Amino acid sequence: MRARWQKPPLYQARGRLVCYVPPDAPDGKNRHLIGRAEGFRLYAKIPIMLLTIDHVGIACRDLGAAIERYVGVFGLAVVSLETNDEQGVREAMLATESGTSYVQLLQPLSPDSPVGKFLERRGEGMHHVGYAVADVSAALAEIGATGIRLIDSRPRHGSMGASIAFLPPKDLGGVLTELVQPLG
Amino acid sequence: MRARWQKPPLYQARGRLVCYVPPDAPDGKNRHLIGRAEGFRLYAKIPIMLLTIDHVGIACRDLGAAIERYVGVFGLAVVSLETNDEQGVREAMLATESGTSYVQLLQPLSPDSPVGKFLERRGEGMHHVGYAVADVSAALAEIGATGIRLIDSRPRHGSMGASIAFLPPKDLGGVLTELVQPLG
Repeated sequence: MRARWQKPPLYQARGRLVCYVPPDAPDGKNRHLIGRAEGFRLYAKIPIMLLTIDHVGIACRDLGAAIERYVGVFGLAVVSLETNDEQGVREAMLATESGTSYVQLLQPLSPDSPVGKFLERRGEGMHHVGYAVADVSAALAEIGATGIRLIDSRPRHGSMGASIAFLPPKDLGGVLTELVQPLG
Repeated sequence: MRARWQKPPLYQARGRLVCYVPPDAPDGKNRHLIGRAEGFRLYAKIPIMLLTIDHVGIACRDLGAAIERYVGVFGLAVVSLETNDEQGVREAMLATESGTSYVQLLQPLSPDSPVGKFLERRGEGMHHVGYAVADVSAALAEIGATGIRLIDSRPRHGSMGASIAFLPPKDLGGVLTELVQPLG
């Protein structure tokens, strides 16, 4: 079977064409790998906004205990430990083997901070998910144009020098969503 | 500054030594990139169990509406749509640009399934996080040895042919955690 551009079998994203490439076919230019299915590689003709999952943000009451857990159980290593006064958190970034996705542990600086209120309401657990994007300002403009509300209309400072912006859970099925443009 | 092996500045994982490599130094063998800090690459001498974030599992009431949202807002493409009777879910996998991390959307098949009960209790939102591992059986043995309880003591079938196992939120700070060994 020859590789060919066609509409995806399930859902079409913004008119994107998807290419099914057999296992033995060479890679092509202007193709963006979006997955594999039944031995075939799937490519899209236009890039996807979300590059990868940058991190999961996990709310905890005791940052030291949470770090010990992820270090002791999974062998992760802490690569950053910061206080973000603007967000009211003390946070640690723990790298996975890939070096491009992280577990972010968040301890609130006070009970009335957003993470403090989250802990009060929901208890410890997953607080948000952060996706890497190439350009957070461009992504905000594109997402805003779809009618989704923005918590941050302009990027702000995140962990490890990244530019970040949050999108509200109300418009995204209950998921607090962060866009992350990592430091170059 | 020369690269050298040393104990990490913050926390030491299982006696792991971490190497700080300046930006202009070549890559070395037997090093596992775990992150970057202040322009330096950070390498560990032993591999980290969690390779990367494979997916975030998101519970939703209406799978079709949730898919439309992730396709329409972020341009993701659906690469798999499956029913998992054992887990009581209808699920979609949507690939990020990397092709190695996914948004997994989960609609319960019945209100008394685990995801059905989660929706009843917490509403729509993040349900679990899945990390890629090289060998899920080996990871389960290693994690079990740390005293963490296991939901699955042996791997079972997950999305897209993966071998998976779940770890309980009670032992992991409120986070339902999945180990994923993707189909080779």
